[in-house]
Amino acid sequence: MTLAPWRSPLARALHRNRSLVYARYFQLATVCAEGRPANRTVVFRGFLDDTNQLKMITDARSKKAEQIDQNAWSEACWYFPKTREQFRLLGQLTLVGAHCSDASLLKARERSWQELSDAARVQFAWSPPGAPREDTGFDAPPPDPTTPRSNFCLLLLDSTHVDHLELRGDPQNRSIYSFTDEIGWSMQSVNP
Amino acid sequence: MTLAPWRSPLARALHRNRSLVYARYFQLATVCAEGRPANRTVVFRGFLDDTNQLKMITDARSKKAEQIDQNAWSEACWYFPKTREQFRLLGQLTLVGAHCSDASLLKARERSWQELSDAARVQFAWSPPGAPREDTGFDAPPPDPTTPRSNFCLLLLDSTHVDHLELRGDPQNRSIYSFTDEIGWSMQSVNP
Repeated sequence: MTLAPWRSPLARALHRNRSLVYARYFQLATVCAEGRPANRTVVFRGFLDDTNQLKMITDARSKKAEQIDQNAWSEACWYFPKTREQFRLLGQLTLVGAHCSDASLLKARERSWQELSDAARVQFAWSPPGAPREDTGFDAPPPDPTTPRSNFCLLLLDSTHVDHLELRGDPQNRSIYSFTDEIGWSMQSVNP
Repeated sequence: MTLAPWRSPLARALHRNRSLVYARYFQLATVCAEGRPANRTVVFRGFLDDTNQLKMITDARSKKAEQIDQNAWSEACWYFPKTREQFRLLGQLTLVGAHCSDASLLKARERSWQELSDAARVQFAWSPPGAPREDTGFDAPPPDPTTPRSNFCLLLLDSTHVDHLELRGDPQNRSIYSFTDEIGWSMQSVNP
């Protein structure tokens, strides 16, 4: 696999914004069954091995997981406050749960679990997210750090369209990266 | 109109994050004709008069405007870095363009134009956004500050479902606010 051409400006943005812990958060939009958009903040967990797929994690009990089963399309919107630039990454999501049939993805899921802090892992032992608030169900002991809980999912975004906007500059700069099976990645400068 | 119950925690978040200029930015998700989500950063421009509708602005030539015409549903995801809290606002968008038939909305559009800086206004005189990059078309003089350009739109989000998550706290706190015509706004605490 070759590095997609948008990986280099994205790596630069991550580096230049590294003092802000929340520069590793972005907003992930999906579409729910009724055709309405859903949008939430997620944490960037790096790239899957030597691919261009962004890694996130999620709980199989969340609405997000249900939505992805019905419509895998997603657009991530990633704003970098320090350098004032935005990446919009459109592509398809893959949810890697406990019953995934791909052994290498299952292994990646296991590694993601092992890389989490205890505080992040214990959330997967909490009461079902989004259900009416319970007073108990939040005092579970830290789960086994080696073997993922069954509701733990690795979530992958495989982008085919990336829109990079730099607000600095007069006028601003905007580049669109597109992937097709025939040509691979291509880039075009567009009006901001 | 009464203030929706989520207005008070949102006002508090805005106040506590006021030192960060980008705490007034959020990510707005829409659905495009092919049923795929689109997601971009927008600037919060306050509330419409004495309503609970969030104001934004956009260019009638943008893809966003086209998407809204087909599907008005949107979810805004607003993350406040300093207080580590997130508001997700689901509702319907209204695009107020030059040919809007509602006189009071046209007036609000005009006021929004007048409140912009010259630097923000001149972007509406730039070459068409998203079209192949042109070298010229970015040196227009500042537009008339009184009368909006025809492609200037006020954009309104009328939320009916607001999900407020506070990451601080162990466990985290999460409240869902829902609006129905019969009951008005109601609030429920849910598991994070």
